[in-house]
Amino acid sequence: MPTFKLTLEYDGRGFAGWQAQGQGERTIQGELMAALAEIAAGPVRFMGAGRTDAGVHAEGQVASAAFETVLDAETLRRALNAKLPPDVAVLAAELRGASFDARRDALAKRYRYQLWNGELPSPLRAPRFWHVREPLDLARLRAGAERLVGTHDFASFRGTGSAVKTSVRTLHRVELAGRSGAEIHLGVEGDGFLRHMVRNLVGSLVEIGLGRRSPEWITELLAARDRRAAGRTAPACGLVLEWVRYPDEPETPAKSAP
Amino acid sequence: MPTFKLTLEYDGRGFAGWQAQGQGERTIQGELMAALAEIAAGPVRFMGAGRTDAGVHAEGQVASAAFETVLDAETLRRALNAKLPPDVAVLAAELRGASFDARRDALAKRYRYQLWNGELPSPLRAPRFWHVREPLDLARLRAGAERLVGTHDFASFRGTGSAVKTSVRTLHRVELAGRSGAEIHLGVEGDGFLRHMVRNLVGSLVEIGLGRRSPEWITELLAARDRRAAGRTAPACGLVLEWVRYPDEPETPAKSAP
Repeated sequence: MPTFKLTLEYDGRGFAGWQAQGQGERTIQGELMAALAEIAAGPVRFMGAGRTDAGVHAEGQVASAAFETVLDAETLRRALNAKLPPDVAVLAAELRGASFDARRDALAKRYRYQLWNGELPSPLRAPRFWHVREPLDLARLRAGAERLVGTHDFASFRGTGSAVKTSVRTLHRVELAGRSGAEIHLGVEGDGFLRHMVRNLVGSLVEIGLGRRSPEWITELLAARDRRAAGRTAPACGLVLEWVRYPDEPETPAKSAP
Repeated sequence: MPTFKLTLEYDGRGFAGWQAQGQGERTIQGELMAALAEIAAGPVRFMGAGRTDAGVHAEGQVASAAFETVLDAETLRRALNAKLPPDVAVLAAELRGASFDARRDALAKRYRYQLWNGELPSPLRAPRFWHVREPLDLARLRAGAERLVGTHDFASFRGTGSAVKTSVRTLHRVELAGRSGAEIHLGVEGDGFLRHMVRNLVGSLVEIGLGRRSPEWITELLAARDRRAAGRTAPACGLVLEWVRYPDEPETPAKSAP
C-alpha cells in the first residue's frame, strides 16, 4: 500500500486543534481525512506527527497517509489542495516506505513562539503573537532558557489531561531565535513534547524576563515536578510548529515567519 | 474645543470598511465613534484621512476628533484602547490646532500591497496577501510601475460608484518596496487616491508581470480614461495603509510589516 509523507501549513485560528476533543468540532485532521476519503480507493491509515492544540499554527506539520491509489505524490498534493479549505494546505507530498509512521518515526520537532513586547496593542499582530506589555529583559530570559536544554523530567510543564507514561524529554535548543523591534521569537527544539509543554515553558520564561523570578527558578521547577509550581500557560495564538525531522533527512533550517 | 490627531492600526478582515455602505455593518469609524461617545462630554466632530474598503488593513490610518474634554492626549489614547475591540487600536494621540482636519489637511499617503508569488498556497499568508501562482517578472512589473509616477488622469483606475469631481492625482512613488522569497511588497505613495485605485493599479501591474501585457499598456490605460480598459481589481486583503502625512511633519519612513 503506498504510504505518503505530507507536509502541512495551517492557520490554527479556525480549528479546535489537530484532533477533536469533542464531537462536531472542526479539526485539521478532520479536514485532511475528508479530503483523502474523496481521493483514496478504500480505507486510509492516517497519523499526524503531533497533536497541536486549538489555535496553534503550523508551517511544517507532518502526517503519514497510507491508502490504495494510482496517483503519484505530486498529483496527490494538487488533488488534496484543490479539496482543502484555504486555512490548511499540503506543501509537499512524498512517497515513503510502507512502514512510515509520522508519529512514531519523528526524531525531532521545532516550535517557534512569537511575543509582541510593545507597549501598544497591535491589531495586525494580535492573531499571531502574545502581547506582553511590560519590557522583557532578554538576558534574563536567555539565562532561564539555557537551563531547560538537555534531558529533564518536564512534569512541571505538562498540561493536565495528559495520559503519557513518562514526562522525561530532551530539549536540544531553547533560544532567542529572532528579534525585530518589539517582536521576539523563541525557538524550542526537542525530541518530543508533552501537552502544552512549549506554552508552559514560555509562560515561565516570561515571568523571568519580567523580573518576577530569577533564571534559577527554572532549575527549581524542573526539580519540583509539579505543574502548580510553574508559570501560566502562554496563549495558543503565538505558537507555530516549524518542522518535524525524520531519519535520513538533513537538519532543517528555521523557516522565515510568514 | 480640543482637537486630536489619532493614528490607528487595524486588521481589516472583521470590518465592512472605514465607513458603512449599508446599515448594521461593523465599521472602523463606527467602533471609534462609539468609544469616543463614552469619553467625550458632548458631540464629537470626527473625520478619517481616507475611507479604506472592506478588508483593507492599516498600520497608520489617521483620524481627527474634536470634542470637549479635560483629558490629555496620552490619557485619551489609553482610554480609547481600553474601550476598543482587539482588531483596532490607537497607536498615538496628539493635541492639534482647532482647525485640524484629517481628511482636508492630508498631504500624502502611502499604501503597501502584499503579493504571495509562490506556486503553493500559504494558509498563514492568505489573510494578508494576494496569491498569484504564476511567476511574476519583476523587471516588467517595475517598468509598468514607473509609468504611473507623476500627475495623470487615473479615470481608468477609478472604482465605480465614486462621486469625486476630478480623477487627476499625483503619484510620487510606485515601487517594488521589498521582496523576501516569494513575498513581494509594492509601495504606492501619492497626494490622494480614487476609490479602489491602488487595487486597480496592482491588478494591471500583475497582468504586466505575468507577461499578458507590455509595460507600455499603462500609458495606453492612462490615455483611455475608461475603467473597462484596465485589469482586474486586486483583492482587498493584500492592501495596507502605511501612513498619512500632514504639513510640518517629517517624511515618514516605510514601516516593517507586522
